[in-house]
Formats: sequence, structure tokens, C-alpha cells
Amino acid sequence: MTISIAHLGPPGTYAEQAAVFYINWLAKKTGIEAILCPYPSIAQSLQAVAFGHTQLAVVPVENSIEGSVTMTMDTLWQLDRLQIQLALVMPIVHALISCATSLDSIKTVYSHPQALAQCQGWLQEFLPSVQVIPSNSTTEALQRLEQDLTTAAIASSRAAQLYKLPILASSINDYPENCTRFWVVSQPKIEAVDDISSASASHTSLAFSVPANVPGALLKPLEVFAQLGINLSRIESRPTKRSLGEYLFFIDVESNATSAEMQSALAKLNKYIEVLKIFGSYNVLPINAFGNEVKS
Amino acid sequence: MTISIAHLGPPGTYAEQAAVFYINWLAKKTGIEAILCPYPSIAQSLQAVAFGHTQLAVVPVENSIEGSVTMTMDTLWQLDRLQIQLALVMPIVHALISCATSLDSIKTVYSHPQALAQCQGWLQEFLPSVQVIPSNSTTEALQRLEQDLTTAAIASSRAAQLYKLPILASSINDYPENCTRFWVVSQPKIEAVDDISSASASHTSLAFSVPANVPGALLKPLEVFAQLGINLSRIESRPTKRSLGEYLFFIDVESNATSAEMQSALAKLNKYIEVLKIFGSYNVLPINAFGNEVKS
Repeated sequence: MTISIAHLGPPGTYAEQAAVFYINWLAKKTGIEAILCPYPSIAQSLQAVAFGHTQLAVVPVENSIEGSVTMTMDTLWQLDRLQIQLALVMPIVHALISCATSLDSIKTVYSHPQALAQCQGWLQEFLPSVQVIPSNSTTEALQRLEQDLTTAAIASSRAAQLYKLPILASSINDYPENCTRFWVVSQPKIEAVDDISSASASHTSLAFSVPANVPGALLKPLEVFAQLGINLSRIESRPTKRSLGEYLFFIDVESNATSAEMQSALAKLNKYIEVLKIFGSYNVLPINAFGNEVKS
Repeated sequence: MTISIAHLGPPGTYAEQAAVFYINWLAKKTGIEAILCPYPSIAQSLQAVAFGHTQLAVVPVENSIEGSVTMTMDTLWQLDRLQIQLALVMPIVHALISCATSLDSIKTVYSHPQALAQCQGWLQEFLPSVQVIPSNSTTEALQRLEQDLTTAAIASSRAAQLYKLPILASSINDYPENCTRFWVVSQPKIEAVDDISSASASHTSLAFSVPANVPGALLKPLEVFAQLGINLSRIESRPTKRSLGEYLFFIDVESNATSAEMQSALAKLNKYIEVLKIFGSYNVLPINAFGNEVKS
């Protein structure tokens, strides 16, 4: 059996690196082989799973410096039928990749807006007068570096190896503790994967809208979790896209959706919310920068 | 007296349009004249005020479709000394600007990532195979359109007029109810502006960190507001940038910071939070797409 995994491409992105880890982990656990399918955007990676073109997708959810990847959350809410199988937390170490011989000759730096934002202090200090140009992924601009020696790109050192390009500066992110959480998502029933993922899952992700913006509209749902001793590890608001000031709330809780306290919480929650979507229960695996599992 | 206003440039951005409205409004109220100072990023617009290069900045805070402008929030928290004077809510109507004679000849579309995201449905329907390239503002790519007839940019129709460029398609945003909230910010004391802005201000914005991620850590501060009948119009979490899973919370409340209930809330809040920053009290002005005040 071979399954396919969608991710943001071209090859060499951090999403691909997380997907490669997952492939190795899955092979070790189940013997299942998997192939990678790069897509031009995160939304298209998720749509690939929803429409059955691939079995899984690995998508970034949140970075410790730049925060939520809103495209992932909005697309999950819209598609309405994807389940999270596993979370991977991976350190992000950016490199400046260029065929230039020194920093002085660089005039333009390309990268994904998240990567540019994560290196803005370094860029201001070492390349204060370059033009910074956002691209659709960290690897999209790599192909043009060989033709233009005044350009550079910010991507992983793994991407530099993959494209056989020189690294001009390593570890250029402003905060050393830079890491990104990825989700492995599938359609609701993928048996082989479900078996290994849902057993003893530690986290559950869900999202809901509240009926009106009155004092305490968000408070009531939060009280439900607090009163049952369920810790929220994250809360994020997103616009409903209907009108300014109307929000959906995305919540990660440290509990399995099938546990007694979560069943109780979900039953009580219904009184205070409008629409509830549960994106599944899953475990969180910390992995290191080389794509190996970190044993705690 | 002439004051200067920083905004995201080049000229023709939505931030400039909001700033132009503010200039007219200010002139009518106080007789003060103002000049516009375009900056290449939102962060630099805010730094211009913090370091005294301009007296004011007009920056986007939140869009009804794409949500928070995280750059604005993160920079406000970091700079630590800016005050919000006024909020402006402006409808956003995007146009496809190009020197091409028809949609068929367009191969590349440039715009700010927020504008691209707000038109993704339209692009998928009418230009499914074009390359979409993010730029630093909606107007940055306008200059190249005349040289390359296969390119287009998404910006306001006002920008098309300003650069004397043809509009190929109007109102291309996916949701008609697309609007952005801008903040006019200054250093804490700008007397002429303070006088007109803080009187009877209806909203207050603040941000805080909580001491630990235990069940209910966010609940306690929210309960303070709810118990005093203060409505939260917005809550947004941002990473502390220290480690994944640690957040700051940005909150807008419908109350003046000098009111009795807010004074009481702020006193009680101190028990539950780590660091509190108050970004000021201000009024919210809805303006129409032509930059005129909407009378309610």
C-alpha cells in the first residue's frame, strides 16, 4: 500500500521536511509507504485531500514567532471534512542562500512572508538597503539565484543542499527558539493511519462561532472548559467573513475528544455556541531540525 | 501648523486613502494641515512615529475577511509608546488593473498578500492559470504594468486613477462586505490631536500577557470585563515569541479607559496578568469608499 501526501512546494519547503519525517515515522510504525505531492499553496494542499487527490496533507498551523497560519485555519473551516491525525513541532532554522560572493553584492532577497518576518531584524542589521520581495514559498525563488548573482533567498539549509546552492549566512532567524507546528490531516476515515493516530491522543482541536457579540459571549464556552479542568493550549479568533467584528474561535485543548470530561464539555458547549466543528484528536510529536523524533 | 502622517506606500494604497480622509477630517475639525509620508512597510510607518520622524501614522489593523494585520499588533507591542487617536473603518473594493486588452492575455497578477487572499475566489474563477505574486503593498507593482502587457495588479480604483492605468475588472473581492479598520496612532502626547480625539472616546485597546498556561489563565481577565458589563469587541492572541504555546492577548473593549467601570476593571486585571499595555481610548469613524464620513 502506498499513500500520497500533499504539501506546499516546490520541494525543499519546511512543510516538505515535516512530511518527509512523517513518511519515515509512518513506514517504521506501519510499513506503509508514502509519496510526496507538492502543491503551489497551502489551500491547494488541503483541497487535494478533501477532493480525494491525495490521502494526506502536511500543513503549517502556527509558528512561535509569527503566529497562526490563517490560510490553514480558514481552509479547514471551509472544507468542513478534514481530520487532524498528528501534530509535528519542528525547529525552523533559516539560511541566506545566494550565489553572490559576499553580502555587499546582494540587492534583492526573496522568501515566503513568514520567513521574511522571522528574519526582519537580521535583514535590517546586515542587509539594510536590499529590496525584500515576498514569494509563495521559501523555495519558489531558488531557481532564479544562479542566473542573478545580486539575489538571495531565505530557506532551510536542506533546501540549499537539494538545489545545490551555496549558503551565505546560517541561522539568520531573529529568535533562536523559532519553531513551527504542522498538522497531518486526512479525510475522516483513513483506517491504516487512524489506528496509530487516535489511540491515546492527547490534544483536540475545534472551532465554533458564537451567536452574538454580547459581554461574555466567548466567556461562557471558556468557562465550560475551565470548570472541567481542561487546559486550553491555544485560542485564536478568525473573522466569520460576514462582517467586521464577527468571529470564529479556534481552540486547542489538552484532552481527547472521547474522554469523559471532553464529552461533558462538548455537551455543555452546545448551549452557548452557534456552529461547532471538531477537527479531531491527535498526539503531538516534537522533532529536531534533522527530522528525527525528540524523545522526552 | 503642519503635521506629517506616515503610511504604507507607494502612494495609492488603502492606508493612504484612509490617511487622506483623516487629513480632511482633521482640517475641518481643527484647521491643522497635514502632509503624507509613504513608508515601505507598516512597521516602518509605526517606527517613524515612535522615533519622531512623523507626528502620526495611519496603519491597517484588521480586515473583515483576512483578519488581523499581525505586523501592526506586534510592532505596537514592541514599540511600547504609541497611542491610538482614532479608528477608521473603510470599505475595500478591489479592481484588477492592467494594460492588457483582455483577461486572456494576463499571465501574472501582483498584489499585497491580503488583497490576493481577498480575491482568491475571483482569481480561481476568471484567471485560474495565472501566476500570483505577492508584493509589499497593493501599489508596489503598478509601475511595471505599462512595460509588460501580460501583467496585472490588484489595487483600488483610486490607485488606477492616480497612476493613469486602465481597470480591466471592478469589484473583484470575493465578499462584497469587505472592509478594513485602520488606526491613527501618535506618540502619547500630541496636544492638538489629543483634544479632539480622547473626548468621549468609545473604545479602548489593550494587550497583556498571562503568567502561566493553566486552565483558566485567560478566563480570569475575561471574567473581570464580563462582570463589569464591559463588552469585548475583539480578542486576538499573538505569540510572545519566547516559545510555542505562550501568548499575548490583544483586546478591544467598548468603554473609555477613564470610565469608572474601566478603572475598576484595570485595577482587578492586575491580579491575573503579567504585563499590561494600554494603547489608548478612541472613537470609531465609519467612512465610505469615497473617503467620506458615514453619518449613522
